[in-house]
Amino acid sequence: MAVGLSALPSLHPVAGVRLGSVAAGIKKPNRLDLTLMHLAPGSKVAAVFTRNRFRAAPVILAKNHLRVATPQALVINTGYANAGTGEAGIEDARAVCDGVAQQLGCELHEVLPFSTGVIGERFPVERLLAGLTGCAAQLDENNWARAAEAIMTTDTVAKGASRRIEIDGVPMTVTGICKGAGMIRPDMATMLAFVATDAPLGQSALQACLEHAANRSFNRITVDGDSSTNDACVLIATGRAPLAPIAEPQGAAFAAVQAAVAEVMLELAQAIVRDGEGATKFITIAVERGTDSAECLRTAYRIAHSPLVKTAFFASDPNWGRLLAAIGSAGIDDLDVNRVAIWLNELAIVQQGARAPGYREEDGAAVMAQPEIVIRVDLGRGAASETIWTCDLSYDYVKINAEYRT
Amino acid sequence: MAVGLSALPSLHPVAGVRLGSVAAGIKKPNRLDLTLMHLAPGSKVAAVFTRNRFRAAPVILAKNHLRVATPQALVINTGYANAGTGEAGIEDARAVCDGVAQQLGCELHEVLPFSTGVIGERFPVERLLAGLTGCAAQLDENNWARAAEAIMTTDTVAKGASRRIEIDGVPMTVTGICKGAGMIRPDMATMLAFVATDAPLGQSALQACLEHAANRSFNRITVDGDSSTNDACVLIATGRAPLAPIAEPQGAAFAAVQAAVAEVMLELAQAIVRDGEGATKFITIAVERGTDSAECLRTAYRIAHSPLVKTAFFASDPNWGRLLAAIGSAGIDDLDVNRVAIWLNELAIVQQGARAPGYREEDGAAVMAQPEIVIRVDLGRGAASETIWTCDLSYDYVKINAEYRT
Repeated sequence: MAVGLSALPSLHPVAGVRLGSVAAGIKKPNRLDLTLMHLAPGSKVAAVFTRNRFRAAPVILAKNHLRVATPQALVINTGYANAGTGEAGIEDARAVCDGVAQQLGCELHEVLPFSTGVIGERFPVERLLAGLTGCAAQLDENNWARAAEAIMTTDTVAKGASRRIEIDGVPMTVTGICKGAGMIRPDMATMLAFVATDAPLGQSALQACLEHAANRSFNRITVDGDSSTNDACVLIATGRAPLAPIAEPQGAAFAAVQAAVAEVMLELAQAIVRDGEGATKFITIAVERGTDSAECLRTAYRIAHSPLVKTAFFASDPNWGRLLAAIGSAGIDDLDVNRVAIWLNELAIVQQGARAPGYREEDGAAVMAQPEIVIRVDLGRGAASETIWTCDLSYDYVKINAEYRT
Repeated sequence: MAVGLSALPSLHPVAGVRLGSVAAGIKKPNRLDLTLMHLAPGSKVAAVFTRNRFRAAPVILAKNHLRVATPQALVINTGYANAGTGEAGIEDARAVCDGVAQQLGCELHEVLPFSTGVIGERFPVERLLAGLTGCAAQLDENNWARAAEAIMTTDTVAKGASRRIEIDGVPMTVTGICKGAGMIRPDMATMLAFVATDAPLGQSALQACLEHAANRSFNRITVDGDSSTNDACVLIATGRAPLAPIAEPQGAAFAAVQAAVAEVMLELAQAIVRDGEGATKFITIAVERGTDSAECLRTAYRIAHSPLVKTAFFASDPNWGRLLAAIGSAGIDDLDVNRVAIWLNELAIVQQGARAPGYREEDGAAVMAQPEIVIRVDLGRGAASETIWTCDLSYDYVKINAEYRT
């Protein structure tokens, strides 16, 4: 049950990016589970990956390949994460990249592999290799929606976002897809997200664009505080739009592209939270007037990861005592609690560290009953602020994770 | 449903400590909710309190009182935490201390107040004051079990532990009670715990004894990672045992008392985890061969706080992938994952960072089906080790916290 997520929006094709997805029977029959993305010559690719010390085999390989070549293709499977599989997992991922290289006539190290699904089990290499032929035959610029479906695991809805902008009268597109619902607390990058634009970004502009957007989107969400072994976020620029090259991260054209990429990534990241495992509420946590960004984030995540706060949201209980307890244990040693104020949407619930004058329980309950809620915390200490997004903790989170094998 | 907790063990009286508990109707009728402890003259008291920045009014007052006088009485109510109540809450707590002082003929600042229950609402002072007469009338050295019951909130069982030891042929007693089931991730002290001994400990020996025991018990448990606003752990030494005074934290007699206090506190702390909200499993997490204590604890708590690991335990699923993901994101930047090994009880499940050779899923499942499980993680980096205790995350945790107002 995704909170406030309608059907997949229209995903505009990006000139130079073709996609193909098939049901390769990797883990379950008759579901799309293997995707190939082909990038036209001249495309640039930037990526950020999980900082979990246990990195999946495809993450290790993709990082190595990015270091030595400009990718021509991405291959993505669900069903198995190919993590915790040791040297054998690396060999498996390499075999799949080799299969892609043979299909497309490129080099093995020009292919980036991505996997998501169960940790610790090897995937059926032969079935992946067999599926690649179908993927290659289907390659088409109009296949983003199908690919969004093909990369799902515990996701209940396919996730994508798309923007069209004009720069100096030239139309340009940014389109992205992602997957993720549990084990979500990205650190550096997140989940699997693939975003492409036809803007002519050079490598340093592309990297700057990616980091800017990821730090305002995927690096600001959490479902359960668990960081995956496979998180990756890829930004592709095919350069097919007829505009002067944007080599460096500066100028109006760069700013316009960066804004569009940031918008698409934020929509994708929020879609992951809206589809968070068992989520019934979409919660924005804004921490303001901290001394620095770090303490704002620490406070925000402390709230977002508190099982007591999360279950109170599930119960639509305006339990501000749990909020105070979370804020008080966020590790700000010299916090003056008498300066702390909290709002639920526009409703003042805490002022000067205690119940706000005039606050009525029924008003709090009315806000908490809504599917989308903003918690705003004023630390009263400084000028920094940060915003993150999370969801509640419901029976279904427990059910999904007690029954599903990550 | 407390894991492996039988009925309250026999709690030996401690000479010099008298207790009285009544049903004062503080929040609900007909349940014990108010307790008075009277300490004979000459008793010494040491206490550690929550490090949450939002400290409850009774915590603030108790710390102040301890600074200026040797306590003669403790007063403990359930129903209301008297936290987030501002200056009015301080006045309320002071009024209750004053009531105790009048009953017992001592000074207001010789009374330590403790509260547990709902945060953010003021308690009914008049009802507490009215109940004190009954408490005073009941004061008796044999009332520990009744007091253990009277301090419960979401606890499903009363918790107590008791030891009798002999030092140089002189019998000595350590008896303690505690409460706590949710909002449990003590930091410095924990929940409410009251432990008394008749050993003749001087103040510095008493303080050393308390810190030693708390750091091996209450400061090593977690249910949900949430630190309370009211945590407090009190150690009382009445000095009634006919033994030479133990002024300093050294020597054989001190060591014997310290060991008995540590045993009682560990049993109490583990009882809190066994009675953790919704708990169906009691889990010991031992992290070994880290470079220092801090990284062992960080790894252990990362595992203990992972909702994915906790739900896997609930499901009896030997999901070692989730353990790897938790260890990999514990913030040890230079962790060599190829040296990591994990055991479930005696069963090797991970060796050299991947599935252990010979590991069979059914063996893992058999261990996970047991109500008490030890996870042992070898980081392969150094000589430090730490052990903590936690429980699983079940439907009932969500149910309890969606329905109960902390």
